[in-house]
Amino acid sequence: MIAVAREQTLAGQLLSAHLVAGQVEPGTEIGLRVDQTLTQDATGTLVMQELEALGLDRARTELSVQYVDHNLLQADERNAEDHAYLRSACRRFGLWFSKAGNGVSHPTHMQRFGVPGKSLAGSDSHTCAAGALGMLAVGVGGLEVALAIAGEPLYLRMPEIWGIRLHGELPPWVSAKDVVLELLRRHGVSGGRNRILEYHGPGLAGLTAMDRHVLANMGAELGATASVFPSDEAVREFLRAEGREGDFLPLAAGPDAVYDLEEDVDLSTVEPLVAAPSSPGNVKPVREVAGTPIGQVVLGSSANPGFRDFAVAAATVRGRQTADSVSFDVNPTSRQILVDLARTGFLSDLIGAGARVHQAGCLGCIGMGQAPAPGSNSLRTFPRNFPGRSGTVDDSVWLCSPETAAVSALTGVLTDPRDYAAEQRLAYPRVSVPARSAEVGAALTPPLRPAEAAREELVKGPNVAGLPDFEPLPDRLEGPVLLTAGDDVSTDEISPAGARALPYRSNIPKLAEFAFTRIDPEYPARAAAAPVHFVVAGENYGQGSSREHAAITPRYLGLRAVLAVSFARIHWQNLVNFGVLPLEFADPADHARIGRDDVLVLAGLHDGLDQGELTVRDTTRDEEYRLAHRLSPRQIDVVRAGGRIPLLARELA
Amino acid sequence: MIAVAREQTLAGQLLSAHLVAGQVEPGTEIGLRVDQTLTQDATGTLVMQELEALGLDRARTELSVQYVDHNLLQADERNAEDHAYLRSACRRFGLWFSKAGNGVSHPTHMQRFGVPGKSLAGSDSHTCAAGALGMLAVGVGGLEVALAIAGEPLYLRMPEIWGIRLHGELPPWVSAKDVVLELLRRHGVSGGRNRILEYHGPGLAGLTAMDRHVLANMGAELGATASVFPSDEAVREFLRAEGREGDFLPLAAGPDAVYDLEEDVDLSTVEPLVAAPSSPGNVKPVREVAGTPIGQVVLGSSANPGFRDFAVAAATVRGRQTADSVSFDVNPTSRQILVDLARTGFLSDLIGAGARVHQAGCLGCIGMGQAPAPGSNSLRTFPRNFPGRSGTVDDSVWLCSPETAAVSALTGVLTDPRDYAAEQRLAYPRVSVPARSAEVGAALTPPLRPAEAAREELVKGPNVAGLPDFEPLPDRLEGPVLLTAGDDVSTDEISPAGARALPYRSNIPKLAEFAFTRIDPEYPARAAAAPVHFVVAGENYGQGSSREHAAITPRYLGLRAVLAVSFARIHWQNLVNFGVLPLEFADPADHARIGRDDVLVLAGLHDGLDQGELTVRDTTRDEEYRLAHRLSPRQIDVVRAGGRIPLLARELA
Repeated sequence: MIAVAREQTLAGQLLSAHLVAGQVEPGTEIGLRVDQTLTQDATGTLVMQELEALGLDRARTELSVQYVDHNLLQADERNAEDHAYLRSACRRFGLWFSKAGNGVSHPTHMQRFGVPGKSLAGSDSHTCAAGALGMLAVGVGGLEVALAIAGEPLYLRMPEIWGIRLHGELPPWVSAKDVVLELLRRHGVSGGRNRILEYHGPGLAGLTAMDRHVLANMGAELGATASVFPSDEAVREFLRAEGREGDFLPLAAGPDAVYDLEEDVDLSTVEPLVAAPSSPGNVKPVREVAGTPIGQVVLGSSANPGFRDFAVAAATVRGRQTADSVSFDVNPTSRQILVDLARTGFLSDLIGAGARVHQAGCLGCIGMGQAPAPGSNSLRTFPRNFPGRSGTVDDSVWLCSPETAAVSALTGVLTDPRDYAAEQRLAYPRVSVPARSAEVGAALTPPLRPAEAAREELVKGPNVAGLPDFEPLPDRLEGPVLLTAGDDVSTDEISPAGARALPYRSNIPKLAEFAFTRIDPEYPARAAAAPVHFVVAGENYGQGSSREHAAITPRYLGLRAVLAVSFARIHWQNLVNFGVLPLEFADPADHARIGRDDVLVLAGLHDGLDQGELTVRDTTRDEEYRLAHRLSPRQIDVVRAGGRIPLLARELA
Repeated sequence: MIAVAREQTLAGQLLSAHLVAGQVEPGTEIGLRVDQTLTQDATGTLVMQELEALGLDRARTELSVQYVDHNLLQADERNAEDHAYLRSACRRFGLWFSKAGNGVSHPTHMQRFGVPGKSLAGSDSHTCAAGALGMLAVGVGGLEVALAIAGEPLYLRMPEIWGIRLHGELPPWVSAKDVVLELLRRHGVSGGRNRILEYHGPGLAGLTAMDRHVLANMGAELGATASVFPSDEAVREFLRAEGREGDFLPLAAGPDAVYDLEEDVDLSTVEPLVAAPSSPGNVKPVREVAGTPIGQVVLGSSANPGFRDFAVAAATVRGRQTADSVSFDVNPTSRQILVDLARTGFLSDLIGAGARVHQAGCLGCIGMGQAPAPGSNSLRTFPRNFPGRSGTVDDSVWLCSPETAAVSALTGVLTDPRDYAAEQRLAYPRVSVPARSAEVGAALTPPLRPAEAAREELVKGPNVAGLPDFEPLPDRLEGPVLLTAGDDVSTDEISPAGARALPYRSNIPKLAEFAFTRIDPEYPARAAAAPVHFVVAGENYGQGSSREHAAITPRYLGLRAVLAVSFARIHWQNLVNFGVLPLEFADPADHARIGRDDVLVLAGLHDGLDQGELTVRDTTRDEEYRLAHRLSPRQIDVVRAGGRIPLLARELA
């Protein structure tokens, strides 16, 4: 009865409702019907080029939205050129277009389009945030989203379902961010890998839909496939505030639900936590690192996007001055929330206390601006602090709640908000969310009617280059190991974002000049001399962002296989989609035996892939290591063809 | 009696009150006592290095303020490193520090520190804006400001005084910006050269202090030395709103004032105007270019900084939607104005209509962000539209009033606001300025006490390089002409600002790689092969920004003399200060006779400078041309020594 019990979980129900291939059985491949998609501009320009390559006439999903939230600085003409291209592609293919300044995709999607029970695929790793509304929301690579827009199923390795029971009540000065940091403290950045996190229990009653967004969003930092929450009164209230109560649908796990794994969190015992540099998994109690000097505090991002998150900080700093030594930056997350903060006076509180208020968008979270000074600690309510992601080499970024951020901005040092409140006799501000969100019609444009759309021309400037062609996988690969790396290499280290690299998001040859440069600035130059080469890494290779550039740019430079102890889900799929073999060491210890510049031979690849077992020969050391893979037969076909686009092209021909 | 009559003008009174050398006689050199200084971060890091080089202990002005308003994007660590350096220098030298996000120097200085009757020198060409309060405010190069901070007089060539009489009343949908565009239409970008513009007449009664700021600010675009306005009830009202009524002092021209030149503007006949690409002097009535498609509209900058300028736009777009095809960007100008716009609801109106609201600062005006898409028209309330200044190569930037900007954002095409209002039956919004500005204490830090300041260490990161040394002027110079140019070359073309170059503002060798690249991308490379070389140009060479980098970086690459028909004031002085000879053709037609790569010989320089006459020999064409200069004996000493810093060093030794 275990299978039925799993299907009674809310995740199981959502999966079953969308299942078009496979079975709800962990480890097997399943295909899911995709109701909605979201793309953002940093990944979306490739998605639109993929739609062009697929010859799509019109989106086949119920709803697809293209957001412009990443590349907002416009330091030169390339960003605005992208925005124009994306707008024209939305008009051409029947997508919604959310223009620059409208907000971060995740909270904006939740406010405008989220519907309980629907499935959502997004080319952004934090797409999972929509699980807060009882959606099945999964971050994937851009090509997966392009195919979903074209009506194809989304293929996933079926994860285990991890029930996380919340009970008790959060103490003052502790909020949702601390809860997800507590999970990261317990389980680290790969603790959720191949799992769906399903939150349940009486503790949910104290968490609004936007609070749940905080938890769902940072499920990505645990490596989870998705996070789901029941659709209950909190969701109804949220939808009512958006004028969309009609979209409400109650959803919850069935009475006989049995989780594959279980977790218990007593909210009353959670304390203010901080993720120290430079991993979201490097979590400590704030009190243990209190007094650390802070040069910058940043509020915002999809990890703390809600009205409450800004308002509680505003109420804390109201009538006070942030420390002279601190740059206090505010990244509003959506146009609506910004208007609500303005009309309730909270925005003035923030500005009056010294805030620099930026346009609504991702900005500093993706290294687009607000790079901190060298040698200075930056404290942020963001989801990630991977090395250099802020735009500053050797940065020192800490992640925390809005409460901890606000009091630390006042004191200029990392401060446990409970201590500050006790000392200053400051009551914990209990802010209420507006019963009705601001109505702002601007900047969200519905799809054109088919007849109009068909007449639409794509606006392609000189910086939008085509996708490169990749040849099929040969039966034998021989080449050097150009990089060896440890655990938890992030896609920010493989293909950096930030203000220098991101403008080239749709120019693969140019973007490839940045590949792996955060780990080894010489990699692109060395790759030029090694047209077939390998990378060897430890656990959780490719964590973080969903950007498929992290697969395409090294592939463009000659990377043909990554040999790792384990892979992060989205990047693993992106590697396959662009013809790079993701192989796993049968004995994890072997990964440390291979040295940089060792020459490897992978022979008999085609049979080996079918059999699930391969051997790599290190000719430099004269040793052999056993390898495995987790590719489905479908994925073996993809990687053999050199990637999903060549395979589709062959099928069409 | 002409001299006395000139001294009765307000400009004459202000000059006389601050005169420490020379006489109020046009064309002669005068020295002025400087009461206040302002610096901004793009020019200020050099000023602070100059204070270090001068061995200054503490600022000797009544008030000196360092603003951080230019380099706000922080796309990497260099901007924040600058901010930290500037803050430490303010603490060390006894300056006020206005940190990032506090606002553009000019409106912020006016709100917080402007005092009628005081003199102000600022290392920003728009420093002249403070003339709106009856100040004698002059934009100069950074070294001039450093010397003023050290208590030295400011030397200027005494300008003519140009009386501009305003009468009549502005019609609906026409505002101060249109008035200054009208002056630019009449007189062009060098019409105010070697002049102080003194506004007077009954038309002033309808212009608030901030409206006058618009006119005073763009005096820089006319090439004027300064603009002055009487200090009257409008100024008292402004100071009262800032809680500084005690600083008010009535000031006006005397009854017998006689102007060197006179101008008359009937405000009732002014219509909506626009400066077409790519010069502020290229002015046309909006109705003549109506219908031009617009891809971007930007509100803000020191040219339209006031509460009213944003509020009138907000009231126009309230409840409407800006065109789908337009990016509607808002650059708030000061923290106070931003809070006032938030608390009065105007900010919500702007955001609701589709605005992207950026942090308070210069931003797009100096090419830091909001670069438009290629091939797209950008309509801005800014002061300047020099080629490429927006950050986009081959940009197409138009300058207009907030009224024209707002209606064009709604329609998506350049629109005469009177036509839109008639069609939509829209009444002209008469917005009232808050009687009391928001009190926001944050982000303005007073000087430390001397004992504390003496203990302060300068915080210098790896990107703050020293100033290069320049050798004295030899008696003979021989070398090629690396560039020939036409009229009105701007300092934006000599040393570009923008997001790529500005981060290197205090690293001359690196910044020199950008010198003249907007005119000729190969100039830096060609200069490497020509350690002594020349530039030949037409009229008004070096218009625009006050950045002394435009003198230092070409000098670093080997530029020793510029031969031009005429020079813009600030750049002319900067060339001298860094040892580059600014020489003028006795016969303007000669400038067109010299070709690129011609080899020139300037011999007998020292005598020639003393005599005021020189000859240049073009050895390629075997011709000679007569040259003149306007250097004072003091300036001849400076240029002979290789610049003002070597001269001071020699005097100290």
